[in-house]
Amino acid sequence: MTGFNEDELVAVVRKILSDQSSEVRLGPGDDAALVRMGPHLGVLTTDMLVEGVHFVRDAISARDLGYKALTVNVSDVAAMGGSPRYGLVSLGLPPDIESAWVVELFGGLRDAAAEYAMSLVGGDMSRAREVVVSIAVTGEVAKNGAVTRAGARPGDCVVVTGRLGAAGGGLRLAQAPSHEVGVALASEWGRELLTAQVRPVARVGEGQTLAQAGATAMMDISDGLAIDLSRLCRESGVAATVRLVDVPVAPQLFELQRHLPVEPLDLALSGGDDYELLAALPAEAVASAAKRVLERFGTPLTRIGDIREGGGLIAIEADGSERPLEPRGWDHFGG
Amino acid sequence: MTGFNEDELVAVVRKILSDQSSEVRLGPGDDAALVRMGPHLGVLTTDMLVEGVHFVRDAISARDLGYKALTVNVSDVAAMGGSPRYGLVSLGLPPDIESAWVVELFGGLRDAAAEYAMSLVGGDMSRAREVVVSIAVTGEVAKNGAVTRAGARPGDCVVVTGRLGAAGGGLRLAQAPSHEVGVALASEWGRELLTAQVRPVARVGEGQTLAQAGATAMMDISDGLAIDLSRLCRESGVAATVRLVDVPVAPQLFELQRHLPVEPLDLALSGGDDYELLAALPAEAVASAAKRVLERFGTPLTRIGDIREGGGLIAIEADGSERPLEPRGWDHFGG
Repeated sequence: MTGFNEDELVAVVRKILSDQSSEVRLGPGDDAALVRMGPHLGVLTTDMLVEGVHFVRDAISARDLGYKALTVNVSDVAAMGGSPRYGLVSLGLPPDIESAWVVELFGGLRDAAAEYAMSLVGGDMSRAREVVVSIAVTGEVAKNGAVTRAGARPGDCVVVTGRLGAAGGGLRLAQAPSHEVGVALASEWGRELLTAQVRPVARVGEGQTLAQAGATAMMDISDGLAIDLSRLCRESGVAATVRLVDVPVAPQLFELQRHLPVEPLDLALSGGDDYELLAALPAEAVASAAKRVLERFGTPLTRIGDIREGGGLIAIEADGSERPLEPRGWDHFGG
Repeated sequence: MTGFNEDELVAVVRKILSDQSSEVRLGPGDDAALVRMGPHLGVLTTDMLVEGVHFVRDAISARDLGYKALTVNVSDVAAMGGSPRYGLVSLGLPPDIESAWVVELFGGLRDAAAEYAMSLVGGDMSRAREVVVSIAVTGEVAKNGAVTRAGARPGDCVVVTGRLGAAGGGLRLAQAPSHEVGVALASEWGRELLTAQVRPVARVGEGQTLAQAGATAMMDISDGLAIDLSRLCRESGVAATVRLVDVPVAPQLFELQRHLPVEPLDLALSGGDDYELLAALPAEAVASAAKRVLERFGTPLTRIGDIREGGGLIAIEADGSERPLEPRGWDHFGG
């Protein structure tokens, strides 16, 4: 890394992170941070973003990368019905990184921390061969308010927040030769797709609303709807149907389809990186939950299928016919 | 990575980590873990070990690496006077890693978790170009029991637990051509040096005892006594003396010196990786604290110098003469 030595960089980062809530007794810079803990259940999660696996350094700004790295962790807290409180940031940095890049990364982390009303309280930095951003987040949830992946019951409805596939579409757009997609890059829908990929939104309020509405199982869609729903089904010991016409496909993908060989439904089913919430809800709770989520947060909630006895996923075509739905998605060790 | 796909490996790791305390409401496998939080101050810390920076894969077993990776985090909690409670493990794994290696790594993590009576509650795995082990640990400390780096006052004594330099000596021994150090590798002292480097001990009980004894500042020695003491002085706004003859040099280093060109005092001052505790104590508390730490844990506590007004480090030679002590040590971005 060029620019600062470790202690100098730590000093700059501490300054960036110095605006903390009164719950933080001691922030970054000591052996550990000290925070007040709430009376609720603690929620702990960690997610690592690795250059060349989760992002390409030239294709995302340091600020967006920081924002996204924290957001994907917050999304895991949201998926339990919880509220994020404190974050720890560990960075692996290759020698060619400029310290200005690291400062920008922390700027993005701070932006996301402000967005989700949480505090960054510590971290670690090391040399590495590629950029590694490893974040741990603690949060809290009311003792009976937590929703795991394991409680879905036959008869429940499968619902998702928001629209799916935009992040996957944004990735395709970003990777396409720019002379082929110049029109798309200059369009509003093109910019929305790119933004979805680098600035995801964690559905914290929506998660709490779904928990209060009686969600029996919940998770965030990080690897793709199909594979993540198959995981929820496995943990709950159930099967799920997906009515393909009801999957809320991000509308920008139909524009993208005119410029690139993409299949909107396919991106919505297995594109990954959307960070929308996927939940099982008792049938009688769906309508009021959808109304509340839309009114409070402007986020649509869509019923896409049902929980059944058995295992695995079943796609229901427009004509009512059923076929197995392959749980494809993003495998961090696969392609 | 060869052997398992991601979901299969996650299943094996969950099984390894399934032996949890009753405080853990939900361990690995969901979006986040759920734990009960105590009524005390929370302590949060994270440390990342990167292949080629903190370890060489051929030179440490996966089991030792797991053990060490958790221990260095526990050491940071100990350095606050706290108790570790929960750990999160994020791994970056290159494609050539065998899944058996990862399973062994988790075995070592579990061994350390058992040693420190804590629970591993979650994590993340990703491809990466080198092995990256990023761990976050939460712990707790009584509301008035936390000791930061910032409270040392002129007149306090500087104390350290244990003996210093063994980990640095072990690293030198491990890196030496084996035909030059065969005798050393076969000796008890040689094995002790190697063990110090791969299986450090976190001084949790000692840290709490020092906190109760009135320590005004405390930290663990991870990068080397000189550089870490200089950091403690900077945070406290004070200077410190180090009487060189009083530095507790690991005795095995005097054996090592007969085989390799090492300077025992130099390794004790700047070898790093020792994870002993460094603290400032009021002079009147030193004798009883040393007695308690020795009786309870079998760990020596040595007074090595004093806190003075000013800044920086002062070495005191055997003849009483003083000179500036350069804060050398391990810089993660330096060498």
